[in-house]
Amino acid sequence: MTLLIKDIDLLPINDLKEVIYGTNIYIKEDKICHIGEIREDVEVSRIIDGKNKLAMPGLINSHTHVGMSLLRNYADDLPLHEWLNDAIWPVEAKLTGEDVYWGSLLSMVEMIQSGTTAFCDMYFFMDEVGEGVEKSGMRSILTRGMVEDDDSDEKLKDTKELYNNWNGKADGRIKVMVAPHAPYTCSPEFLTKSIDLAKELDTGIHIHLSETKKEVEDSFKLYGKSPIKHVYDLGLFDLHTIAAHCVHVDDEDIELLLEKNVYPANNPRSNLKLASGFAPVDKMLKKRIPVSLATDGSSSNNNLNMFEEINLAALVNKAVNLDAISVSAYEALEMASINGAKALDWSDEIGSIEVDKKADLILIDMDKPHLYPKHNTVSALSYSVQGSDVDTVIIDGNIIMENREVKTLDVEKIKFMAEKHAKDLISR
Amino acid sequence: MTLLIKDIDLLPINDLKEVIYGTNIYIKEDKICHIGEIREDVEVSRIIDGKNKLAMPGLINSHTHVGMSLLRNYADDLPLHEWLNDAIWPVEAKLTGEDVYWGSLLSMVEMIQSGTTAFCDMYFFMDEVGEGVEKSGMRSILTRGMVEDDDSDEKLKDTKELYNNWNGKADGRIKVMVAPHAPYTCSPEFLTKSIDLAKELDTGIHIHLSETKKEVEDSFKLYGKSPIKHVYDLGLFDLHTIAAHCVHVDDEDIELLLEKNVYPANNPRSNLKLASGFAPVDKMLKKRIPVSLATDGSSSNNNLNMFEEINLAALVNKAVNLDAISVSAYEALEMASINGAKALDWSDEIGSIEVDKKADLILIDMDKPHLYPKHNTVSALSYSVQGSDVDTVIIDGNIIMENREVKTLDVEKIKFMAEKHAKDLISR
Repeated sequence: MTLLIKDIDLLPINDLKEVIYGTNIYIKEDKICHIGEIREDVEVSRIIDGKNKLAMPGLINSHTHVGMSLLRNYADDLPLHEWLNDAIWPVEAKLTGEDVYWGSLLSMVEMIQSGTTAFCDMYFFMDEVGEGVEKSGMRSILTRGMVEDDDSDEKLKDTKELYNNWNGKADGRIKVMVAPHAPYTCSPEFLTKSIDLAKELDTGIHIHLSETKKEVEDSFKLYGKSPIKHVYDLGLFDLHTIAAHCVHVDDEDIELLLEKNVYPANNPRSNLKLASGFAPVDKMLKKRIPVSLATDGSSSNNNLNMFEEINLAALVNKAVNLDAISVSAYEALEMASINGAKALDWSDEIGSIEVDKKADLILIDMDKPHLYPKHNTVSALSYSVQGSDVDTVIIDGNIIMENREVKTLDVEKIKFMAEKHAKDLISR
Repeated sequence: MTLLIKDIDLLPINDLKEVIYGTNIYIKEDKICHIGEIREDVEVSRIIDGKNKLAMPGLINSHTHVGMSLLRNYADDLPLHEWLNDAIWPVEAKLTGEDVYWGSLLSMVEMIQSGTTAFCDMYFFMDEVGEGVEKSGMRSILTRGMVEDDDSDEKLKDTKELYNNWNGKADGRIKVMVAPHAPYTCSPEFLTKSIDLAKELDTGIHIHLSETKKEVEDSFKLYGKSPIKHVYDLGLFDLHTIAAHCVHVDDEDIELLLEKNVYPANNPRSNLKLASGFAPVDKMLKKRIPVSLATDGSSSNNNLNMFEEINLAALVNKAVNLDAISVSAYEALEMASINGAKALDWSDEIGSIEVDKKADLILIDMDKPHLYPKHNTVSALSYSVQGSDVDTVIIDGNIIMENREVKTLDVEKIKFMAEKHAKDLISR
């Protein structure tokens, strides 16, 4: 089974940092096996015409809560702590596994339709999320978000079971990490237990860090240091760490992130919507910290469209720094692809289009009026392309969407079931 | 000829500030003649099924340069003054009327496809833009942008001719105003000539004001006052004024805008991209200044998608003010509709869906996965809807787009001609 994408423009996201025009991509089973001239010696079972299309790596969403889409547009225009305590957490307490299953599938439809092929999730009822990932054909890091309470040991047990049930499953498209929610919801003792578990499982950590000013101020009051320094001192950064947000980080924090190869996941839209502020993305990128991009949950965004994050990352940092070359169009695309792969500890297999890497890629319809004229493809991808311009999605060599039709999921049923479960949930 | 939009959800943008679910809209010729229950006594010539759709006023883009789309993605990641002086103006000097015609039509296709029904344009070869507006069926304020030079008197003459040729034309869908480019490109004498011409023609002014920090600093050096105070003292604000940008305005400036009923046009994406900064939108709205929304030209954006501006206005002001209730979802929608109508001095006829107003409205396909579940329609419109969710566009009672098919323009030809003219222009 060899698939040929013929006569296509390609942004591979490699050291050349350039578009290759009119090339050919061969995919054998789950991998890219050749890029370049037509190979007469290879028998091809299927040809996709690449005319007027561009191939780029599938987008990687490095921090989200896919089950939360049931709460999209449910509570808006509230600050983070009020939004969590008064609106989100009381409803989340009523969620069932089935709710999370349908909410997660709704999120996966949306992610596929806007070009995301892999994501790192933090939520609960993660077995149900795993089932969704398996079914959808997507690639995912699953993490069971652990807010410390009377059931904390149970949550650590959940994580271990999640690891045993799902790590390496779905043809290797699923991995599991350990996710203490945040230093402001987990004591040092519980964070240490989480670290120990991650060591035992030989996996990484996914955690919220320094999202709001209040969180940082509270940390200084309680521990005399920033959240970053606090978890650094606990040894958390000795493990591979996806650090969601890193908005309120100072120069000392940034040095610690750099020293320990921590992977900050920047959520520009969520940080604006919850009035959290602006992460110092440009400063971190200049230090060669591979900041990745993420949507956060769709209830603080309110969508899971990574092209909007790319676009915003390339725009907002310019105004924050009053510097029009801050976070270039190309850097924003790297954040959403290769940097995301690094965050997910998966850059040996995904994040760029290269021979022997997994075939996780998207084809964009470049024939839309808003993509004319064709002066600069990289600019067009960062500043003009819409999520709805994604035509085809391939993950692990499988065609997951073609001509915008999702092949793996029953979209109409998912919309219906998500609506039903959302309404039930609110009135429960 | 009466058109009925049946069983539709409606956000009229009126004092109720609410969505009306499952209503009916009757359109007779160019006007809305009834909203509410089915009228058995009215003979209907055409019915549009409103199921799963939402009607809202057509979006109004209060500051753009539609001919500039030929330069979309041509020069990016540069600060405003360098971008203008070194990249844009040298190429613009080579533009022909035919270039502007095709660039403008390309912009109109894009605007229609993303739900914009009216725009205020500032450019040159404005006869060609007028021809495009007439053909496309859109509504527009045309202004001939005047940068002072040796030909300034010629430009004033152009404006007068533009007024005589086009004001009130295209079934009244075109009006003409006077557009001195900015205080930093026009002397006080030339600004005064422009004011006199606007008085003579009994029309308004369209001008760039306080876009960058540099511009304000230069104004203080040259005139000892801000650009706002400078033109206030010249009497410019005695006329209806659309003031594009107003990014670097202080409290005193805001008082002057308020005193003189000036209409600031906020261009959030352009201001980010050119690193101009953040306009104090929330502060101006709280003073009841009807700030409108705009895209600026697509070469500093890089598109003309008003839903992205709505979305950004509702998001970015929250983070700037560290206040999650700053610029609500509903306020952002008002900015893009009724406030835009006020800016264009057209709110007696457009900007809301009400009986006796012109039928300028759009129907949004609310059945997309990223718009589920249906908790809050206003939030969905501001935070989740994409430009590509616009299904139908009606302007002046005419169906301009239906099922995303543009009825008035030859989209394929326009893409081809815009590409050809863009390439010719660069190599000229």
